Amino acid sequence: MKDDNLKIIPLGGLGEVGRNMMIYEYEDTAIIVDCGSMFPENDMLGIDYIIPDFHYLRSRKEKIRGIIFTHGHEDHIGAIHHLLEEIQAPIYGTSLTIGLVKVKLSRKGMLDTVKLNTIRAGENVRIGPFKIHFFHVCHSIPDSVGLGIETPEGLIVQSGDYKFDHTPVDNWPTDYAKLVEFSQKGVLALIADSTNATRSGWTPSEQMVGTALDKVFNEAPGRIIVASFASLISRVQQVVTVAINHNRKITFVGTSMVENIKMAQEQGYLEIPEGRMVSINTALELPDNEVVIMCTGAQGEPNAILGRLARGTQRQFDVREGDTVVLSSKIIPGNEEAVYSTINDLFRRGANVIYEEIAPVHVSGHGSQEDIKLLIHLTKPKYFIPAYGEMRHLKQASLIAQQTGIPEKRVLVVENGNIINVKKGKIKVGGQISMDTILVDGSWVGDLGPDEMRDRTLLSRDGIVLVHVNLDKDTKMIRGKPAITSRGFSAFQEAEGILARLEDPLIKTVNHSNGKLERNIINTVKNYLYKETKRNPTVLVTVSEI
Amino acid sequence: MKDDNLKIIPLGGLGEVGRNMMIYEYEDTAIIVDCGSMFPENDMLGIDYIIPDFHYLRSRKEKIRGIIFTHGHEDHIGAIHHLLEEIQAPIYGTSLTIGLVKVKLSRKGMLDTVKLNTIRAGENVRIGPFKIHFFHVCHSIPDSVGLGIETPEGLIVQSGDYKFDHTPVDNWPTDYAKLVEFSQKGVLALIADSTNATRSGWTPSEQMVGTALDKVFNEAPGRIIVASFASLISRVQQVVTVAINHNRKITFVGTSMVENIKMAQEQGYLEIPEGRMVSINTALELPDNEVVIMCTGAQGEPNAILGRLARGTQRQFDVREGDTVVLSSKIIPGNEEAVYSTINDLFRRGANVIYEEIAPVHVSGHGSQEDIKLLIHLTKPKYFIPAYGEMRHLKQASLIAQQTGIPEKRVLVVENGNIINVKKGKIKVGGQISMDTILVDGSWVGDLGPDEMRDRTLLSRDGIVLVHVNLDKDTKMIRGKPAITSRGFSAFQEAEGILARLEDPLIKTVNHSNGKLERNIINTVKNYLYKETKRNPTVLVTVSEI
Repeated sequence: MKDDNLKIIPLGGLGEVGRNMMIYEYEDTAIIVDCGSMFPENDMLGIDYIIPDFHYLRSRKEKIRGIIFTHGHEDHIGAIHHLLEEIQAPIYGTSLTIGLVKVKLSRKGMLDTVKLNTIRAGENVRIGPFKIHFFHVCHSIPDSVGLGIETPEGLIVQSGDYKFDHTPVDNWPTDYAKLVEFSQKGVLALIADSTNATRSGWTPSEQMVGTALDKVFNEAPGRIIVASFASLISRVQQVVTVAINHNRKITFVGTSMVENIKMAQEQGYLEIPEGRMVSINTALELPDNEVVIMCTGAQGEPNAILGRLARGTQRQFDVREGDTVVLSSKIIPGNEEAVYSTINDLFRRGANVIYEEIAPVHVSGHGSQEDIKLLIHLTKPKYFIPAYGEMRHLKQASLIAQQTGIPEKRVLVVENGNIINVKKGKIKVGGQISMDTILVDGSWVGDLGPDEMRDRTLLSRDGIVLVHVNLDKDTKMIRGKPAITSRGFSAFQEAEGILARLEDPLIKTVNHSNGKLERNIINTVKNYLYKETKRNPTVLVTVSEI
Repeated sequence: MKDDNLKIIPLGGLGEVGRNMMIYEYEDTAIIVDCGSMFPENDMLGIDYIIPDFHYLRSRKEKIRGIIFTHGHEDHIGAIHHLLEEIQAPIYGTSLTIGLVKVKLSRKGMLDTVKLNTIRAGENVRIGPFKIHFFHVCHSIPDSVGLGIETPEGLIVQSGDYKFDHTPVDNWPTDYAKLVEFSQKGVLALIADSTNATRSGWTPSEQMVGTALDKVFNEAPGRIIVASFASLISRVQQVVTVAINHNRKITFVGTSMVENIKMAQEQGYLEIPEGRMVSINTALELPDNEVVIMCTGAQGEPNAILGRLARGTQRQFDVREGDTVVLSSKIIPGNEEAVYSTINDLFRRGANVIYEEIAPVHVSGHGSQEDIKLLIHLTKPKYFIPAYGEMRHLKQASLIAQQTGIPEKRVLVVENGNIINVKKGKIKVGGQISMDTILVDGSWVGDLGPDEMRDRTLLSRDGIVLVHVNLDKDTKMIRGKPAITSRGFSAFQEAEGILARLEDPLIKTVNHSNGKLERNIINTVKNYLYKETKRNPTVLVTVSEI
């Protein structure tokens, strides 16, 4: 099949448009931008994480000639090992990003299966009809880029996650010159990060965090424990810098954090002077006011280091009176309850806890309303396509774009699966790739759908009651008593009485049933229990003929 | 038993200290302040709501001579019908509060079982050794009060939910004079609302909401739909006022909202001029720009009006292009995901959606850091006891109190169940009432505890697998095949194959089992399934001997 226009499609089954994956297709070539994973939502019971739906890519296997990463955060690289099980294509990214991809692939034993290409910001790559310019942007991880993608139908700029930070931790501002260069060539469409489109003003510089941390370090009487994401490399650099200024040694706890830091040091993205980093065991023997401990768990994950410290189940040490704990990362929506419960428990253990609500120990890596306006004016796009946000963010970004002068009809709000058709300088949204939310639970991928989620929800709401009935294979009458048991339905003693009283009605139901035996048993149980308790447990029936 | 001192105990099994219930005990008299219910947390699966643990009250039944309400929000009155099943005592509150309690009790058919006493702010009530002064405070519901409780051991001021609003909707500011009067008598302890202790500055006036609503009404091209809490009576008044100014008629949808509004009108807390309020059917026939619809569902509850509008399942009307939807209430922590999903769906239907992140269409009813400082300086308490907050709020409020000059040793951070002992002008915290979180699910109260919650969590995480085995009662060998079925474990086809392959190992396990048959079956199933899928479903076994 030969398409005669450029197609751009945001993929990823759930949530934020194009954040996890985009595809650009022209004639017989396609490239993929990013391949990330997502936290499950609160009602996705038992799910470990979510990945994009690859079924559309499967039918285009032969066309896909490159996978390009904008930066190394999980929501942009986290599903790469799943993708590589289906698609063979070389990977392109900047040096730190490729480093983080390597750490991930080597854990899965997949390093040898793929060709990794390191591209520097400012360079470009040709893949078939596409010429892809990598341009540096500031974000909460170093070595992030946006992409200027020259196509036969025009130049598309995809911002990647970005903000305009004039005093970034690594002294490397967003590449304004390249953005202006694009505008001089003529930008057909800007696909722009709208994560913070509901925030007025500018997103503050990362420097604000340094200042806030300095204040915390000034006032902390004892140990300082800083929790963040394992991939927030520039935050690590900030903590290291403040630690040096305050004559503290630093130690890192948690496998993922230790691995990422080692890699970032080797690649020169993280500078820790000789002798400044110590092992956790050494750190625990130093005077309290000479130590900083960095760890994971700022999302309230019960099994990460901070969660274990809050619950008193961390093997190496306990939080105690005099400790200062800093949560230096945003709360991902849906995690609020878990994070606040962790903070409360840390306070109960006597620690002083500093978090975003109290002091600016975290700042967003995404541009706010004024950043978005500047990006538009620098690139002067003909079309504006907000991405990387929920519908409410996209709508807000589209209002902002109209305020800057882009006519409403050239502001295109799309959802995942919508096809953006580009032809002769015109863009039309039309057609829709159907897409599922692909849930990963344990080692199986994609076997769980809405039905199983509904079953799990029902089980979790009122528990389950199980009935086994033995029938005489000749008379079809019940033999013995029905076996009834339950789980999650009620505390043992009260349930026992109720379930025992079910025996007689059940025997009657079985012996008077003609056809639809299971359905009749379920109805008897459900009606009786609802009358008694106003609960509606799942009822499962097994029948043996003997 | 005769106690020789005053005891104050915050009760309520979960979360915010003393928000839902407090008890004051002196010799043979006790009074209860508030009796509220709470939203369940996200991991309390299937729970409708939470109520305080009454077991401590049961042993003091004879002493309890009054139940006093500070205001009519659910988290302060929502469990009254459960309490009245255990305790007989007269109820005291201001007129709107008693009105809301009446609406609740009449729904439960319990109006005749209790004596309701209406007290005006500024008045006081004597109950045994207690003289209880009701003083007016501003909050997000009219007719709210704090309490000045004169006891033989000193004067205790309990703030209730409050803020210092200089331009409240009902023109009735907090009673500064009464607070100063207390300070002149000498306040032994101030028990103060610390909900917003992490917010700097002052909480803005409700007037800000009026201004924001006015702007929304100015710009709305079509219908306006405002969602809020059914009990947020002063917000209703604000919407009515703005509607009048913009020549729109108003209609209310949802039983609880309609009932509360009728009662508040009858009692004079809500003024809606003749002819301004119309039925929903009339409203739907008016031109779009002459209508305001007020409804419930601003917490993203799927079955409330706004949730049904978002999903297109509201019976009477649909949201459409040109509608403006306003969410005029805070997001209760834990509800973020549901609220944002509702907002996204409303945008998808073409509505413009205005919410707190976009415009100040809601303002908190609780004092911020500067309000707390003012309350302290007005009352000049010897002791400060932060209440109505999670541990992180209490800790923050205690820092604020110390900043105002109260010595650290007289700032007492307590948790629910801690006993505050007051004797001869001194307060000591000592002793602990053990307390459970009482979960309400359906018509049964209190039969579900941590074990059942854990069972439900496990069921929800990986589903359940059920095995029934028939044994020959003589040989104890298996008869026939084991019956195996599952729910929520995997999509049907994949699970079927795996479960079928379990039959042979199970037969072997049963026939080689000596003792602990159920345990052996569970182990066989669990080990096999974990190996195949890395999942860990609940396994339930029933055995019949035949």
